[in-house]
Amino acid sequence: MKVHVLLSPLNADELYFSEKTTVVIDVLRATSTAIVALNNGAREVIPVEKMEFAMRISGGQNLLGGERNLKKIEGFDLGNSPFEYTEEVVRGKSIIQFTTNGSKAVVRAKFSKNLFIASFLNLSAIAEKLTELGEDVQILCAGSNGMFSLEDTVCAGMLIKKLSEKNPEIQLSDSSQASVILADSFAADILKMLRESEHGKELIEAGFEEDLKLISEIDSVPVVPYFDSDSLKLETEEKGSGEEK
Amino acid sequence: MKVHVLLSPLNADELYFSEKTTVVIDVLRATSTAIVALNNGAREVIPVEKMEFAMRISGGQNLLGGERNLKKIEGFDLGNSPFEYTEEVVRGKSIIQFTTNGSKAVVRAKFSKNLFIASFLNLSAIAEKLTELGEDVQILCAGSNGMFSLEDTVCAGMLIKKLSEKNPEIQLSDSSQASVILADSFAADILKMLRESEHGKELIEAGFEEDLKLISEIDSVPVVPYFDSDSLKLETEEKGSGEEK
Repeated sequence: MKVHVLLSPLNADELYFSEKTTVVIDVLRATSTAIVALNNGAREVIPVEKMEFAMRISGGQNLLGGERNLKKIEGFDLGNSPFEYTEEVVRGKSIIQFTTNGSKAVVRAKFSKNLFIASFLNLSAIAEKLTELGEDVQILCAGSNGMFSLEDTVCAGMLIKKLSEKNPEIQLSDSSQASVILADSFAADILKMLRESEHGKELIEAGFEEDLKLISEIDSVPVVPYFDSDSLKLETEEKGSGEEK
Repeated sequence: MKVHVLLSPLNADELYFSEKTTVVIDVLRATSTAIVALNNGAREVIPVEKMEFAMRISGGQNLLGGERNLKKIEGFDLGNSPFEYTEEVVRGKSIIQFTTNGSKAVVRAKFSKNLFIASFLNLSAIAEKLTELGEDVQILCAGSNGMFSLEDTVCAGMLIKKLSEKNPEIQLSDSSQASVILADSFAADILKMLRESEHGKELIEAGFEEDLKLISEIDSVPVVPYFDSDSLKLETEEKGSGEEK
């Protein structure tokens, strides 16, 4: 198993992902929030690239969620905080997700053969799924407006460490090695790392400090959201599946 | 002084660099080779983005240098190994440089207010120059076909460490912090890091192992090449200036 980390979506175009197995990470907050929403019974999360498109497909059983400049967008039902995506709010709903980095990163990787989302919340579950598949892995960090994001890279490094335990023959690219070194440097206190990261500081300033605490809880939401037919869903045998009961 | 590292030229467009002070790093091998060429008396190094343009402006007092897939290009005078750029060959000459990553990265940053190139060969000299200027610094890693490059990032981290010694009030972005952590992890044996990097392995396979040794010698070519009017030159008071004697 070869593992490669893309530190920004700009590092590769859409066709790069064709036939690949990809994991998209946007710790703060898009993939963390989508994982929580699906675990709380959302039928699906539909990541979109353009806000106009999000507005156009909204309505009915859909909820429109996301952010611009960290804040809920006018006309949207929900912002981008995982605390808003309670079971009461999301059960059975399709959630259209538009965010600055994460939803766009998922859309960029849409041609992947297998496409998953991860965050600290579901690291071990994703590592197990990837081990089961046994394919080479691309980890796409959503980054921050095309730039490097510390929290996404540390999360990628921790995922690789979990994969390494299960796959001793793993081969790491330069960026994978670098991610592991950064994970080793920060893993002892993920919440501290989040608080001191550029994006974490902005979130604290905007009043979302509690989000960081929830998002730092490793393996607390052990689901495997996969992308298929333009939306993220849980496998039906998974706990918290969005299937109607 | 704020320092930010761009881990790939794709992280920012040309206008991003406007009014900024930028250092471009392409350890293997474009900036290392340009530094050696200028130190050996080349009048200037003209980085170009397109091979066709390189061919068009060549001739006369010009030498055409660079590589595609690590090898010298047909019709070019020189490849991309620093060993080819001896005083005998380059003194007084304008060198047109076309390479896969480095020359394009310099061209991308051309709107910078101050633009320098660095590698392990001139780290302290560049750190001193940046300290003298006292401006915020962008370090642009040329990377590898738009992807992360370990050697460029480690070099960026070592430059930041030198800047930190001289500027205790320095402020590091997430990518700067990450680069410093990687530098700490690899600084003890730069040659080993180069040998084990993806690009280093390719160069060894292509017969350029000696290049890695030369390129790993920290501060062995203490010059400050700056970009002005479309070319890289040395300041005239520097040792090894390209001025005719």
